[in-house]
Amino acid sequence: MSTTAVPTSSLLHQWSLSHAAWDGLLRAAERLRGPAGTEPLLTGKRVAMLLLNPSLRTRLSMEAACQDLGAHLLSAEPGSSWNFEWRSDVRMDGAAAEHLEEALGVLTGMSDAVALRAFAGLHDAAEDAADPVLELAARACPRPLLNLESAMDHPHQALADALVLRDHFGGSPALHESAPRRRVVLSWAPHVKPLPMAVPQAALGAFLREGHDVVLAHPPGFELDARVLTRVEALGAERGGTLETTHDRDAALDGAHVVYAKSWGARAHYGDVDAGATAVRAQPSWRVSEADLARGDDAVFMHCLPVRRGVVVDADVLRGRRSLVQQQAAARLPVQKATLCHALGVDP
Amino acid sequence: MSTTAVPTSSLLHQWSLSHAAWDGLLRAAERLRGPAGTEPLLTGKRVAMLLLNPSLRTRLSMEAACQDLGAHLLSAEPGSSWNFEWRSDVRMDGAAAEHLEEALGVLTGMSDAVALRAFAGLHDAAEDAADPVLELAARACPRPLLNLESAMDHPHQALADALVLRDHFGGSPALHESAPRRRVVLSWAPHVKPLPMAVPQAALGAFLREGHDVVLAHPPGFELDARVLTRVEALGAERGGTLETTHDRDAALDGAHVVYAKSWGARAHYGDVDAGATAVRAQPSWRVSEADLARGDDAVFMHCLPVRRGVVVDADVLRGRRSLVQQQAAARLPVQKATLCHALGVDP
Amino acid sequence: MSTTAVPTSSLLHQWSLSHAAWDGLLRAAERLRGPAGTEPLLTGKRVAMLLLNPSLRTRLSMEAACQDLGAHLLSAEPGSSWNFEWRSDVRMDGAAAEHLEEALGVLTGMSDAVALRAFAGLHDAAEDAADPVLELAARACPRPLLNLESAMDHPHQALADALVLRDHFGGSPALHESAPRRRVVLSWAPHVKPLPMAVPQAALGAFLREGHDVVLAHPPGFELDARVLTRVEALGAERGGTLETTHDRDAALDGAHVVYAKSWGARAHYGDVDAGATAVRAQPSWRVSEADLARGDDAVFMHCLPVRRGVVVDADVLRGRRSLVQQQAAARLPVQKATLCHALGVDP
Repeated sequence: MSTTAVPTSSLLHQWSLSHAAWDGLLRAAERLRGPAGTEPLLTGKRVAMLLLNPSLRTRLSMEAACQDLGAHLLSAEPGSSWNFEWRSDVRMDGAAAEHLEEALGVLTGMSDAVALRAFAGLHDAAEDAADPVLELAARACPRPLLNLESAMDHPHQALADALVLRDHFGGSPALHESAPRRRVVLSWAPHVKPLPMAVPQAALGAFLREGHDVVLAHPPGFELDARVLTRVEALGAERGGTLETTHDRDAALDGAHVVYAKSWGARAHYGDVDAGATAVRAQPSWRVSEADLARGDDAVFMHCLPVRRGVVVDADVLRGRRSLVQQQAAARLPVQKATLCHALGVDP
Repeated sequence: MSTTAVPTSSLLHQWSLSHAAWDGLLRAAERLRGPAGTEPLLTGKRVAMLLLNPSLRTRLSMEAACQDLGAHLLSAEPGSSWNFEWRSDVRMDGAAAEHLEEALGVLTGMSDAVALRAFAGLHDAAEDAADPVLELAARACPRPLLNLESAMDHPHQALADALVLRDHFGGSPALHESAPRRRVVLSWAPHVKPLPMAVPQAALGAFLREGHDVVLAHPPGFELDARVLTRVEALGAERGGTLETTHDRDAALDGAHVVYAKSWGARAHYGDVDAGATAVRAQPSWRVSEADLARGDDAVFMHCLPVRRGVVVDADVLRGRRSLVQQQAAARLPVQKATLCHALGVDP
Repeated sequence: MSTTAVPTSSLLHQWSLSHAAWDGLLRAAERLRGPAGTEPLLTGKRVAMLLLNPSLRTRLSMEAACQDLGAHLLSAEPGSSWNFEWRSDVRMDGAAAEHLEEALGVLTGMSDAVALRAFAGLHDAAEDAADPVLELAARACPRPLLNLESAMDHPHQALADALVLRDHFGGSPALHESAPRRRVVLSWAPHVKPLPMAVPQAALGAFLREGHDVVLAHPPGFELDARVLTRVEALGAERGGTLETTHDRDAALDGAHVVYAKSWGARAHYGDVDAGATAVRAQPSWRVSEADLARGDDAVFMHCLPVRRGVVVDADVLRGRRSLVQQQAAARLPVQKATLCHALGVDP
């Protein structure tokens, strides 16, 4: 609705960002932690946020980012309206009262940018792999679209995690030859129910793009999406990052500088919640303990939150001085400001 | 709470508006689509919105209208508090934890105007015909009250639909002798459950007040409220509008300039959800198709949304270039600004 | 985040306030009813509100207070995210997806003050008596924390009730020897289910601290928390207040200047909802009627709302000219402004 110096842009997947765009967003986020972060950069702009799934950090960081930058936010959340259909060519005689295309048209008509959360359906692996709700939204929405976690990716979490890694290690080996590559371990974790793969895939993308030596450790049967892995590994290789996958958890943790825990469901039980729950409950030894951290090299613990204490990780690890989980949550705010400026064509 | 140039005023029913007030609101809405729509006309004002039923367009257009005009909004929605009782002289030993009179007193005490959504209960036709929750609210509320859809009426939708008709036809035959009267067909549509009659009654009122030749087409047994029909027909006659009711859908669609689809429940099954659902499912041939539109005279399609694709209307009609549904949704924003200014005594 | 003239401060329990702080908050609330109440005193401040239970007055008065004083509000409510665990050392394999400590860390990281509503669990009387969720939050939260009703106390309601008493009686006997002590009766009331004890305990504290002759009337078996009673009675004694407890409702009402009705559950059935409901339903004669008020000395009726008509109190009492319930609700707004200024170190 207003003239801007920079072209507006959607943020659908982290792997669609050029290296320059990735680094630019992180630099902007760093700047927006300072006084620039409470300048009225987005006055007169309105953002419509549609959350099809529950949220705490995402919703609050979006609200706070808009407040700080002077933008108006319209928020539609679970429970405030009704269920939305997203499939094409379906006769809508079920629970959904409105098609997402119509709803997005309405949001678009009242805003300068749209932000969408649409988790994986967890019914059909091939369907989820196509990130269908996000793709539909991208087609239906003529405004810049921000992905606040889709079936396959969570780019805001990826950027926040990268920012925390840069803070912790004093820089990124992808940018500075003087910065050493670190052993960053993404360790599958137990849970009480099967969860989507968006966050682990986003985290892997961030670690690789930041140029680290990344180890993906999970029990057999918990493979992530092969196409996503290929893509983020290739992008990472351009920045010096390496990816190793293993089922040997102890070996993975040896010498780790970062232990990033996250649970997700087994591919064999995709669409079967009960069998999926049994599978993720069946590996309690993958819960992260202080002893696990001690195998590392001055290792820190990371998790995107929310996290179940005593299931994913021991409470003392989570609350201990080696835990970066609150830093990760706090980084969501400047990252959200950066992607809003990016979406709305404002150079912060 | 502040001095204003224009008297403040409630908007309970569209049929209670004088023609001058109706035209004045539409002129204000047109003005508020321009730069006036983002002037701080309502700075220092607070609006309390109580939504007893789900909402998307209504809630977002109210939020956006307040943001744009500088008003503060307090919003109480389904799920954020508890159930409210509205009947007088009832012993409250059921699900309702608070009487609407007390709640409205609280909202009133913190605001300059109140906006209420209270759908038809669909238990008792005679009870709904009295619009009892809205009437109670009007008695209980010493501030201007805006009706965001009650049992019998949806005046904001009526105004938005009138605005879209004026846009589409380049004016209103009620105001300009040079503007020809058009054939505007309100066509009942199938659904999966019986719905209230507020929107079709509001739409009829808008078409008639705008001076068109209106055709109401529905299967036998789907009569609207007789008292409302009498009232809006009489108002329409003063503006050159005519009303014809028919069960012959094909004849209705022949030569139509507008096909406005909407479902509502059968009178015979009022209060019986299962029988009502069977009745509205039993007429699938009333679903609007491209072939139906082709019977018209360059006909456009209208619907208030949300709409079920493949049940009420075919997806290709809805998404086609003859569909005005997004224009209708977009018109809710300037209309909401106009009724807020009206309620708060501000001349936009 | 900004420099302030007054030290910031939490408000956990009314009985932890010094008399000077209590009177200071009430004086501030009185001032904030005037033009000072819409000054931008809190510009640049952000408040995070976490409501673990439903709310109407509390949520709206917090929103309105922040709007009026220029603060930003982040609000997390039931249904917008997930269930939170608060117990330490529990394996989180149940319904709760996040521990309150993590959630409060996130809220704290994005705000200058936190406000929490966490009702009594009503499972275990000893557990509730320790106000465990509020105590956990106070330990976990490095920012000022406002109690928006905990298991044992509702300090904002206490302050609002005190403000209304001062209005009604033209001052407080605790402050002015010329103001006579009044007979203020807290009368237990029937209900349809057992309710927590926070409000009656808060009200008693307010009446006593204001220096009145307080009568607590309830059927046998409905004792409040002994430790709280001892504490508020001692504080009240320092201000001239007296406390008498009785099971004789008629004697209590004789000569009353104020009849404050409130229901709560029986101790013997704590944790047993069905037996608790039977117990609170079994005393219908405790419902407040006009005849009850007539036993008093020009008695007024008070209740914190929400209230069930015909169960707790007759509708004519509630809506009558002797009812102060709307004044109580309205007083929540200036009180909320006062406690926000108190929490954020701003002298209004």
